Amino acid sequence: MREGDQGPVGAQQAGDSIIFSSDKPLRLDSGARIEGLEIAYQTYGALNAERSNAILVCHALTGDQHVAGHHPATGKPGWWRSLVGPGLPLDPERHFILCANVIGGCMGSTGPSSPGPAGAPWGLAFPMITIADMVRAQAMLVEALGIERLFAVIGGSMGGMQALQWAADYPERIFAAVCIAAAARHSAQNIALHEVGRQAIMADPDWLDGDYAARGARPEKGLAVARMAAHITYLSEAALQRKFGRELQRDGLSWGFDADFQVESYLRHQGASFVDRFDANSYLYITRAMDYFDLAGAHGGVLADAFRKARDVRFCVFSFTSDWLYPTTESRAVVRALNAAGARVSFLEIHTDKGHDAFLLDEPVLRAALGGFLESAGEARGLPCPA
Amino acid sequence: MREGDQGPVGAQQAGDSIIFSSDKPLRLDSGARIEGLEIAYQTYGALNAERSNAILVCHALTGDQHVAGHHPATGKPGWWRSLVGPGLPLDPERHFILCANVIGGCMGSTGPSSPGPAGAPWGLAFPMITIADMVRAQAMLVEALGIERLFAVIGGSMGGMQALQWAADYPERIFAAVCIAAAARHSAQNIALHEVGRQAIMADPDWLDGDYAARGARPEKGLAVARMAAHITYLSEAALQRKFGRELQRDGLSWGFDADFQVESYLRHQGASFVDRFDANSYLYITRAMDYFDLAGAHGGVLADAFRKARDVRFCVFSFTSDWLYPTTESRAVVRALNAAGARVSFLEIHTDKGHDAFLLDEPVLRAALGGFLESAGEARGLPCPA
Repeated sequence: MREGDQGPVGAQQAGDSIIFSSDKPLRLDSGARIEGLEIAYQTYGALNAERSNAILVCHALTGDQHVAGHHPATGKPGWWRSLVGPGLPLDPERHFILCANVIGGCMGSTGPSSPGPAGAPWGLAFPMITIADMVRAQAMLVEALGIERLFAVIGGSMGGMQALQWAADYPERIFAAVCIAAAARHSAQNIALHEVGRQAIMADPDWLDGDYAARGARPEKGLAVARMAAHITYLSEAALQRKFGRELQRDGLSWGFDADFQVESYLRHQGASFVDRFDANSYLYITRAMDYFDLAGAHGGVLADAFRKARDVRFCVFSFTSDWLYPTTESRAVVRALNAAGARVSFLEIHTDKGHDAFLLDEPVLRAALGGFLESAGEARGLPCPA
Repeated sequence: MREGDQGPVGAQQAGDSIIFSSDKPLRLDSGARIEGLEIAYQTYGALNAERSNAILVCHALTGDQHVAGHHPATGKPGWWRSLVGPGLPLDPERHFILCANVIGGCMGSTGPSSPGPAGAPWGLAFPMITIADMVRAQAMLVEALGIERLFAVIGGSMGGMQALQWAADYPERIFAAVCIAAAARHSAQNIALHEVGRQAIMADPDWLDGDYAARGARPEKGLAVARMAAHITYLSEAALQRKFGRELQRDGLSWGFDADFQVESYLRHQGASFVDRFDANSYLYITRAMDYFDLAGAHGGVLADAFRKARDVRFCVFSFTSDWLYPTTESRAVVRALNAAGARVSFLEIHTDKGHDAFLLDEPVLRAALGGFLESAGEARGLPCPA
């Protein structure tokens, strides 16, 4: 897929991504500011003359801007290749698709591994960030790109949280919002699961109180354990049973602590490959941002109040039956609040045993339903129909 | 509660427990043998003249023989105080209640922290054990106590697995078997969750390839992370939400990595207090034994065949609606197999939002139903009715 080359003033190509350098500081919810903000992003397709066909894709916790195309670190196809591409719901032949690495991330946007004011990596001196801060940074990029109103903001998991945050904070700047396998707040269980991952990282002596990058170390073992624990939560029991069951790696048991079962080997591989592409401090900061997320809490405890100004936004909410991380009850709470706020909302619970990960997989019902929603929204927005 | 003082030949009091030292080696499923086997146990109540009132309680992964009374390490009341005591289903005024620390454990029975053949702690030289090995050791103790036939074998979680194993291996030596919140095999998800815990322990540099005890170290951080991850699985999302929600530790967020949320603080406490009472290598060995557990697999893939000789045993199976570690489907598979084998079985799924941990908590329906089952089985066994 040909990648776009639109860049705002001050943008420059860096590796596979474009880097937007802001001349304004980013104001954070904590009260801190980030000076010299950089945002790494990718685009696919071209902005039309009316600047009305831009879709912002928001990535999940360990995702990045490489939605389609190939990932520079892993060489693998983009993480949303099932939905982004010619003939797919997000079609670079019709849409201008934009995805930016979140602040706090480790794929080129300013984060804890970026050089801090003294030149060395920030480490734990990096300020705490929130989902709203991520969205505020994206809004600066979108503005710099000359896009007054996005056709849609779309995301799954943490990306879905960002889509809801966009609707709350910049309703006039989006035409549609799609929230997949997400929630308007992090539950106690979600927080607990993240805390285990953080403790695993912090227990690694190579974490060095967050200062590992400046001191030439990497808390690989702790980060791998965090990833293994998280990875189980992305799948369902049924999917794990179907995929692995109690299948062994070799004939018979080892009677030791080698990976006897295929599911153990799979999990170890998930941990080991993750540390090659992700930064431990970014994992701490981004999980923390998700734990802090509570859209109702930020609006006096009334979720509908978060969406009072978003009545003209067209919403589409998806959940998956086997997603126990962000179960359908959480999506229903979002839908009820949108209804109470008088917004238009479509909602679909998709039956699948693939768990939370279903939002990343080739899920025909999601593809068809998202395609239909964008088609209909596109007509309302005056976008040309597909050939 | 007065604790019993019955001990077989060769038994001696050690701290709060009695130690049985076997003069015969314990043959293990792996082909290895343990010489000089010791089993630490507790008893409550007295064996009647007919030796017909003995109940063997089997403990769970991190449990021990301190079912009632007070735990010598923590000072807390026994872990099954809701079911064991005067007027409760397991009543020391009527039953002779026996609970032994499993082999591989760390509360006095032979395990990886016991002195090995060379005098130093076994560490990873300790042979791998299985649920069947644990039960074989218990059978040696029960025989040494002069009990030809137990009135009942009862356990929850890993204890329930042992109860099923007793029925499979020694059906003529038990009158009744109670399996609570367990399964006849470990699922892929169960194995995966255990593997995360093991990797967390092994990632701790103080684990020293399992040799920490001989070298004066303790992998406390890794063991704490393992416990935190496991603890989440013992609860349900609803229970966590009800108990903690998004409640903060103090007014406002810390904007850092301190425990902001009460659920984080609770989890950290669970991890920290666990390392005071449990051994990391025991955690490795016992989780491995659970992962290896597959009663159908050991009987040609037909679970009913495990129970062919257990037709005269009275079974009672319990599950909890919110237990996602050992969901009701697993208990139903046990019940179907028992039916297919022609055994008598009562089954009850208990509605609760307390998750897997419900088997340890004061759950009135469990107490009443277990009481009723033991009452009726006691009548059939000719035990005196309660006053």
